[in-house]
Amino acid sequence: MLFHVEMVVKLPSDMPAEQVADIKAKEKAYSQELQRQGKWRHLWRIAGSYANVSIFDVSDNAELHDLISGLPLFPYMDIHVKPLCRHPSSVHQGDA
Amino acid sequence: MLFHVEMVVKLPSDMPAEQVADIKAKEKAYSQELQRQGKWRHLWRIAGSYANVSIFDVSDNAELHDLISGLPLFPYMDIHVKPLCRHPSSVHQGDA
Amino acid sequence: MLFHVEMVVKLPSDMPAEQVADIKAKEKAYSQELQRQGKWRHLWRIAGSYANVSIFDVSDNAELHDLISGLPLFPYMDIHVKPLCRHPSSVHQGDA
Amino acid sequence: MLFHVEMVVKLPSDMPAEQVADIKAKEKAYSQELQRQGKWRHLWRIAGSYANVSIFDVSDNAELHDLISGLPLFPYMDIHVKPLCRHPSSVHQGDA
Amino acid sequence: MLFHVEMVVKLPSDMPAEQVADIKAKEKAYSQELQRQGKWRHLWRIAGSYANVSIFDVSDNAELHDLISGLPLFPYMDIHVKPLCRHPSSVHQGDA
Amino acid sequence: MLFHVEMVVKLPSDMPAEQVADIKAKEKAYSQELQRQGKWRHLWRIAGSYANVSIFDVSDNAELHDLISGLPLFPYMDIHVKPLCRHPSSVHQGDA
Amino acid sequence: MLFHVEMVVKLPSDMPAEQVADIKAKEKAYSQELQRQGKWRHLWRIAGSYANVSIFDVSDNAELHDLISGLPLFPYMDIHVKPLCRHPSSVHQGDA
Amino acid sequence: MLFHVEMVVKLPSDMPAEQVADIKAKEKAYSQELQRQGKWRHLWRIAGSYANVSIFDVSDNAELHDLISGLPLFPYMDIHVKPLCRHPSSVHQGDA
Amino acid sequence: MLFHVEMVVKLPSDMPAEQVADIKAKEKAYSQELQRQGKWRHLWRIAGSYANVSIFDVSDNAELHDLISGLPLFPYMDIHVKPLCRHPSSVHQGDA
Amino acid sequence: MLFHVEMVVKLPSDMPAEQVADIKAKEKAYSQELQRQGKWRHLWRIAGSYANVSIFDVSDNAELHDLISGLPLFPYMDIHVKPLCRHPSSVHQGDA
Repeated sequence: MLFHVEMVVKLPSDMPAEQVADIKAKEKAYSQELQRQGKWRHLWRIAGSYANVSIFDVSDNAELHDLISGLPLFPYMDIHVKPLCRHPSSVHQGDA
Repeated sequence: MLFHVEMVVKLPSDMPAEQVADIKAKEKAYSQELQRQGKWRHLWRIAGSYANVSIFDVSDNAELHDLISGLPLFPYMDIHVKPLCRHPSSVHQGDA
Repeated sequence: MLFHVEMVVKLPSDMPAEQVADIKAKEKAYSQELQRQGKWRHLWRIAGSYANVSIFDVSDNAELHDLISGLPLFPYMDIHVKPLCRHPSSVHQGDA
Repeated sequence: MLFHVEMVVKLPSDMPAEQVADIKAKEKAYSQELQRQGKWRHLWRIAGSYANVSIFDVSDNAELHDLISGLPLFPYMDIHVKPLCRHPSSVHQGDA
Repeated sequence: MLFHVEMVVKLPSDMPAEQVADIKAKEKAYSQELQRQGKWRHLWRIAGSYANVSIFDVSDNAELHDLISGLPLFPYMDIHVKPLCRHPSSVHQGDA
Repeated sequence: MLFHVEMVVKLPSDMPAEQVADIKAKEKAYSQELQRQGKWRHLWRIAGSYANVSIFDVSDNAELHDLISGLPLFPYMDIHVKPLCRHPSSVHQGDA
Repeated sequence: MLFHVEMVVKLPSDMPAEQVADIKAKEKAYSQELQRQGKWRHLWRIAGSYANVSIFDVSDNAELHDLISGLPLFPYMDIHVKPLCRHPSSVHQGDA
Repeated sequence: MLFHVEMVVKLPSDMPAEQVADIKAKEKAYSQELQRQGKWRHLWRIAGSYANVSIFDVSDNAELHDLISGLPLFPYMDIHVKPLCRHPSSVHQGDA
Repeated sequence: MLFHVEMVVKLPSDMPAEQVADIKAKEKAYSQELQRQGKWRHLWRIAGSYANVSIFDVSDNAELHDLISGLPLFPYMDIHVKPLCRHPSSVHQGDA
Repeated sequence: MLFHVEMVVKLPSDMPAEQVADIKAKEKAYSQELQRQGKWRHLWRIAGSYANVSIFDVSDNAELHDLISGLPLFPYMDIHVKPLCRHPSSVHQGDA
């Protein structure tokens, strides 16, 4: 089941550089593990902002919440979720 | 080059049913032709609304505008465009 | 799987009274059938507005979209959907 | 009398972890006590956010305010309240 | 129990003058009847707009909805409702 | 002359508890003095929020500004002002 | 007593040209009469829009409402009112 | 050439009282100097807020920016600028 | 003197095709005449929308208003104006 | 390929003056280098605000993101990007 997730990162301006580097490294590892498992199906940067558009493929709402709330950057992001489903005009196998 | 496009359809409530059916059929054909050409890479329905999230793969801004403004439903949609690029954490070949 | 759906009805002011009565009757029948099936789990009026708050219990996003887009009033409503999941502090059996 | 309450939690990023854990524990206890009393009738997590949707069942506006303003997290939440009443199409006994 | 209600009137620009006069007369009679019954406790014009601020005194949410949705102008108004309760600093007997 | 004033209190999360108690006590005394003088005609709590709706009765805009800007909580509130006047349908002597 | 009034004109696109010309002529005459009486103290066009910024000088809120609601274009304008008073730093005699 | 400028002051809640007094004194002196030169033609307080509405009379956009960005409170204000021009219905000599 | 102007075109859905073609032709001719005169210095399409971003070079606010309000599409556009001036970091001769 | 970029600078009010001066100097050097390379084609100040409107000329979305995210002030700016393309009515060679 697919969900559209948009994440905008807003780090506090007084967070120490070392802590920033650490949390970003953890975020990257966490994200890549989920991508490899097939749960984080797409991940794009929005050009010009510290933000991304993602497509998650999960079994239900609860799993979606677990994955998102486990993000190391979760406390520092504005996150918007939209449930997706197959579009009747789509010809792509993967759009479902 | 990828673009994130969100389209919300707002047909006038007094459009005759026949015209509605006709414009939807044309929209579907137009959309499927672009999907087959690889230019409209993804197309998802947003669950619960007459709206979609799409990913376009075009050579430049001008081609993006030509494709979108040629949509039969173009005069009846609210459309928001965001330029995308590869996310440094993405492991998917196709996210670029 | 639960979804929170808020619907605000906006009928065109020039819709004939007979058509209004007809579409409302169809909406009521449709809604009550889904409630009896257990798919439309709660339905409340928002006091002071022509709007409701609903909780849907469906198997996935696709079923949610089918049910909502099949509403007779669908073309005349602003609809907002939020995916829900069990809250770790909930003690109610039914909140899942 | 039912009220729809949406709460979004926004903890200051510099609140010490111990204080965060303490206030969350108090919130959970407070919430579960009200749920057991039947005053906090439903409590759902909004998937993907640190937020919830709740249904309160109170005797009047004053009791609603007392319960909400007594929440340990009250100073750290954006809260929106909507009065509910029975929907004429509802078939559920409990939707009132 | 008190509720704060703000109403903004938006009549369709093509409503015939006679119908406008008729609906306004009905609205006035309806409003004055509720005021005399003590249910519509205050009614003020917002200077410079076709809008009012009102205080309703009703027994519960359901009665509030019945009174508001029965307004002859109901289909032509944007209406916002806020539940009120006694303020701990109020010295006025009537503010409850 | 009447004005509708809505005040939402937003205290900094790091204000010491003693200072909070002190400023609230001053606010209460200030408010009650104005209520006794008849200048702060109504004061209601908005249920579920740290906010109020008030009706001021002053001789002109300048007096309104003096009273509001003299509030001990003035630097910590979002304040919206609307000028009121008698509604042609009001039957209440006091609504003017 | 001064009020800041911003008016944005939104004529229905299907209003006959003759009616447009007529209502504009009436608006001009009405406005100029109030200006000559000293009640409409300033009137500026906002460059690039069919809108104006005005300063009214009236005896109270009720007179402000009478003047504004009497505007021939009143049903076709979005109007925002702000009460003004003398600024402590102003050196202009007329800013009061 | 006239510009409409609205300024809303938002001082950080932790700015020392002495610094607040100092910056306000500088702002007042700066403002009054510009008023005496005729460049800051009007200055009104918006009743109930720490905000003002001003009319500037400058030779071009660049001078407007120099004057506004030189305000001692510039870093602590939300500022909105609208270019003005003579309204065809204005009868006031000074409205240009 | 430069101004940034963003225009979004919203034609009524029931405007006859012939009238649409006519007004677009007039708009094009009007726009190109101003471009040739050097008053409409830049004109770009916003990709994916029926909208443009423009830079006008005029002698004052009044000329800006005359040019914009003379646009054949003026009654059918949302228009936002921002005054521009030379940026201290610009190295381009033409950015002034 | 052209992009419209609007940047609003929001420096934390507690950033030391020396650090402010340093970051502004770096921003200026970075910006001027990109302007000389032809990638930052236009740069204007928005009169009355600490903000600019810019036109970038880049080969694709990825280059746009690299240039913007490399700005020394990037963590302290609200940035909005719009893809541009040639307008069919433009007569300027450079508008593409």
